[in-house]
Amino acid sequence: MESPLLDREAAPLQGAEGAPDAWLTFDDAVAEGLRDLHPGSEIIVLTWLDQARRGVLSVHPRGNPMNREQGVFSTRSPDRPNPVGLHRVSILAIDANRIRVRDLEAINGTPILDVKPILYPCER
Amino acid sequence: MESPLLDREAAPLQGAEGAPDAWLTFDDAVAEGLRDLHPGSEIIVLTWLDQARRGVLSVHPRGNPMNREQGVFSTRSPDRPNPVGLHRVSILAIDANRIRVRDLEAINGTPILDVKPILYPCER
Repeated sequence: MESPLLDREAAPLQGAEGAPDAWLTFDDAVAEGLRDLHPGSEIIVLTWLDQARRGVLSVHPRGNPMNREQGVFSTRSPDRPNPVGLHRVSILAIDANRIRVRDLEAINGTPILDVKPILYPCER
Repeated sequence: MESPLLDREAAPLQGAEGAPDAWLTFDDAVAEGLRDLHPGSEIIVLTWLDQARRGVLSVHPRGNPMNREQGVFSTRSPDRPNPVGLHRVSILAIDANRIRVRDLEAINGTPILDVKPILYPCER
């Protein structure tokens, strides 16, 4: 993905907290799988948060030391053993193998693992 | 994970469609990350659907030839380039490194990638 967010410090903690729009670019080899996506739809994007620290098992949620430390599986911390990012975003535009999406908090160059449709109207 | 579902043919298409309860078993090395999970909570479980066919880019949704063929990124087909399963489940019980969950449609032995909390009441 391509985003104006260039490092972790610049990234909001959640997409709805001021994240910018981003481009998702797919390999030609999987482009056929994109053919039924349309602007206006909401999708779930799964990413591999490749700058995460995979040895972290407990964190202060939102990086705030005032929050009680918790096991990472009770948080959305990017630092966790398998740092898969889960993002619900809206499609703004589609240009061949590229999809423009709104409010994605992952940083520039984050690999995309998968795209899924929303099955339930309010899911995230 | 341990489930009575032993093969793909036996598995329902979605957890809410009659899937059985299952045990999630974690390595000792990551057990600390589980410490704030509790029975009664709902969680998102991400799995690696290791029996999926990764070369599939179009499917008839729900395996029904009457449904128009669609690109896999518009479906929840397990067959897709990176077969990550996304499951919203309730925790029934916790026994050290094992978590019992309700209604999980993945089959016995499916590797668990990650566990995340629900951030929004109706997300899935």
